[in-house]
Amino acid sequence: MKLIRFGKPGQEKPGLVTAAGKKLDSSASGFDWNADFLGNSEHLKQLEEWLERHSAECPEIDDNERLGSPVPFPSKIMCVGLNYSLHAKESGMDVPRQPVLFMKATSALTGPFDPIIIPRNSKATDWEVELAIVIGKKASYVSEEDAMDHVFGYVLHNDVSERDFQLNHGGQWVKGKSCDTFAPVGPYLVSKDEIKDPHNLRLWLKVNGKMMQDSNTSDLVFNVPQLVSYISQYMSLLPGDIISTGTPAGVGMGLKPPTYLKAGDEVELGIDGLGVSRQKVQEL
Amino acid sequence: MKLIRFGKPGQEKPGLVTAAGKKLDSSASGFDWNADFLGNSEHLKQLEEWLERHSAECPEIDDNERLGSPVPFPSKIMCVGLNYSLHAKESGMDVPRQPVLFMKATSALTGPFDPIIIPRNSKATDWEVELAIVIGKKASYVSEEDAMDHVFGYVLHNDVSERDFQLNHGGQWVKGKSCDTFAPVGPYLVSKDEIKDPHNLRLWLKVNGKMMQDSNTSDLVFNVPQLVSYISQYMSLLPGDIISTGTPAGVGMGLKPPTYLKAGDEVELGIDGLGVSRQKVQEL
Repeated sequence: MKLIRFGKPGQEKPGLVTAAGKKLDSSASGFDWNADFLGNSEHLKQLEEWLERHSAECPEIDDNERLGSPVPFPSKIMCVGLNYSLHAKESGMDVPRQPVLFMKATSALTGPFDPIIIPRNSKATDWEVELAIVIGKKASYVSEEDAMDHVFGYVLHNDVSERDFQLNHGGQWVKGKSCDTFAPVGPYLVSKDEIKDPHNLRLWLKVNGKMMQDSNTSDLVFNVPQLVSYISQYMSLLPGDIISTGTPAGVGMGLKPPTYLKAGDEVELGIDGLGVSRQKVQEL
Repeated sequence: MKLIRFGKPGQEKPGLVTAAGKKLDSSASGFDWNADFLGNSEHLKQLEEWLERHSAECPEIDDNERLGSPVPFPSKIMCVGLNYSLHAKESGMDVPRQPVLFMKATSALTGPFDPIIIPRNSKATDWEVELAIVIGKKASYVSEEDAMDHVFGYVLHNDVSERDFQLNHGGQWVKGKSCDTFAPVGPYLVSKDEIKDPHNLRLWLKVNGKMMQDSNTSDLVFNVPQLVSYISQYMSLLPGDIISTGTPAGVGMGLKPPTYLKAGDEVELGIDGLGVSRQKVQEL
């Protein structure tokens, strides 16, 4: 299933994208993509059954309708740093021996086609295409073998980052990762049954039509079950939590000279099976 | 007002503590201490009016009843590192020139008298008494002058920290800050009108009856309006968000030799006007 949320910011309703690519308003099902829904795999089956009976009655969603984040209420966004070896190299850092974790405030979440707002005093707003995992059943101290039982699905994420805030403003990375609009997520949340191998997905990102990142999740240093298991040794992962698995080489910071986003730029990104998102860059 | 939540984990109901120290079930008011309530200062006035009319009908809460976190649904817990100069020194670090920020997963939240669970593979579970700010009205790019308009109130927080996870497991501090039960908060959320000067509060912490931390918020490097204003330059602070303002000297890591919590220990902490909390330490 491909799950979406559509409508004005803060007033989004649930919908889905059919196999034929039609976008349907599914709010009459009573389900929304919250922790209650995502945490119990029976709900996805119930939604599928409901859809078989009711899809003809579901209103079609206009293509001009805004999409919001399909994962509306994660308790946390946990990000993995330096998880592609070439990106670690372009960042001037070693490939880590265990996953580097940092958090992004959920107040940064925004829709897949919403603008990226350059924050005040920014010098270095950068892009990062990432495969993000969405947690299903709560995970605490799970093994790598059992980890996939706790994955609901996947979503495309642009882990927008302000490098000056991240690296030069003292301390930890969170300052450069959490600005409002720095987490465009979607277009859709794809349940894991639709992604045969999450470790063989092309992911790419263009700025103003020029390919900047073009890689494959086969190059992940730590893969999906390893990350879920690893993080769950430190804290509970709750239904709807997002784990963003890291970005491949090709970010603005790694260019010579470093090149960052400016108002008027357009960022487009995609991952096999997870769709394409597009953000215009704006001044505040 | 002193706001509490009481009942079994996940089933807490709202209540409050009267000036005479009585704990009342206020769920009949229809208010709970969520973002909707905290984000609009009119709601606190309405609650006060409701209480004047209805306090006699509010069931009294038994002293044996469990208290949960009085702030149930923060979108984030933002913590400030090294914000007392003597603590920076005991940590072997310089006093920062701007606030050091890191996040703690909200899944770590727990009640003020719930146990602290030592996580698997822990070597160094440590204590940190902290004054925590609870945000009222949303704050984005607010000045220091206006910052207090965005503060709802204050709460006592034990920023429990696993130093080995925090410092030796690669990368950022979040791994050592986010374990389940590492954020005992409460006993009550105190609205700001009850705290005349948040920068002159004694805060202290005992382990097994022995005073380990004993300081005053007058020693904060960055004070309440400075922190709210500073963080709001990087991200929106939403109603109910928690800012934990840092811990004074006297943590286990700073002792010679370093001394950490073990099963059976009891931690007790308090801040003037914000009450006292107490946690037993348990193995998983």
